[in-house]
Amino acid sequence: MNYNVAPLTKLINEFSRLPGIGKKTAARLAFYIINQPKENAEEFANAILNAKKTVHTCKICQNLTDKDICDICSDEKRDNSVILIVENTKDVLAFERTGEYNGLYHVLHGVLSPLDGINPEDLKIKELLARLNNTEVKEVIMATNPTVEGEATASYISRFIKPMGIKITRLAYGIPVGGDLEFADEITLSHALEGRHEI
Amino acid sequence: MNYNVAPLTKLINEFSRLPGIGKKTAARLAFYIINQPKENAEEFANAILNAKKTVHTCKICQNLTDKDICDICSDEKRDNSVILIVENTKDVLAFERTGEYNGLYHVLHGVLSPLDGINPEDLKIKELLARLNNTEVKEVIMATNPTVEGEATASYISRFIKPMGIKITRLAYGIPVGGDLEFADEITLSHALEGRHEI
Repeated sequence: MNYNVAPLTKLINEFSRLPGIGKKTAARLAFYIINQPKENAEEFANAILNAKKTVHTCKICQNLTDKDICDICSDEKRDNSVILIVENTKDVLAFERTGEYNGLYHVLHGVLSPLDGINPEDLKIKELLARLNNTEVKEVIMATNPTVEGEATASYISRFIKPMGIKITRLAYGIPVGGDLEFADEITLSHALEGRHEI
Repeated sequence: MNYNVAPLTKLINEFSRLPGIGKKTAARLAFYIINQPKENAEEFANAILNAKKTVHTCKICQNLTDKDICDICSDEKRDNSVILIVENTKDVLAFERTGEYNGLYHVLHGVLSPLDGINPEDLKIKELLARLNNTEVKEVIMATNPTVEGEATASYISRFIKPMGIKITRLAYGIPVGGDLEFADEITLSHALEGRHEI
């Protein structure tokens, strides 16, 4: 005989569908929810429904927003002559945390990866090109990740932008601040050497 | 200016309130939810609401159930002369997985821990004693964890059960199967030595 409590098993299964959450963690989280006051569980469930209902991509930069046009795109103080291209929303947040960048963004929502079946039409490339055609952009900064897929995506997109006469730049490679030379891989080190500058 | 998307921030905060989920994992989970089809997010939210609404403690053994009396307590094939006392529902599942135990359970929902403000009245001890008074139980197996709090709880409860003339047993201590003697702590090893048996 199986003594499973159906609604509990269902909740555990739902948690274990989340990325990086195994069966044991899922059970721990489900039991935590059960032991919480009713209001907390309802708040959690409503946060999920509400986020899913109201959050969508910005019409211009494709970043996630709950408005028609996101706060960054609609901020008149930002420099709309520069667009920084990133893979996803988390990268936007990373650049925003630096407080150093005052231009706009474009979120691709992924990188080209033919092996995983991710082709150009799956990314927001069409939207980017339409945007570049219709606005006065002077520089596009390619800030996809320094991975094989990120590089391939950057060079694929560059091919379409170059004929438009827009300046295309790529983030600098080098050793990370606080990093240890001993553990830096050789490719990073050669890039760091190549990109050396006078002090 | 703050570019936070309120519903997304709210969802990240809700996730990060879960035990063992930090800010970064919470953000990863929230983005995962946003990228899921609407139906999946709704199913997840409903699983939370439904589990919270329907799952409660069994009137008899205090284990979690969605019925009035849980499947174990209402199973006539089980031996109702033995009660195994555990700290929480997960321990019940652990014993059920062995397939070796056919008696009933009693879930305390915690252990005595005066430093954390957990006193006898916070555990399901009253319910246990009432149950023992009203039924024909021959043996009570103390299966609280082999920790200081678990031991203290077991001996606290034993004091009330002994006068009833019910046999009280404790789980055997020893080296875990597949364990390495080299890494066993001295207390476990002395228990294993003490409890040795002829082969």
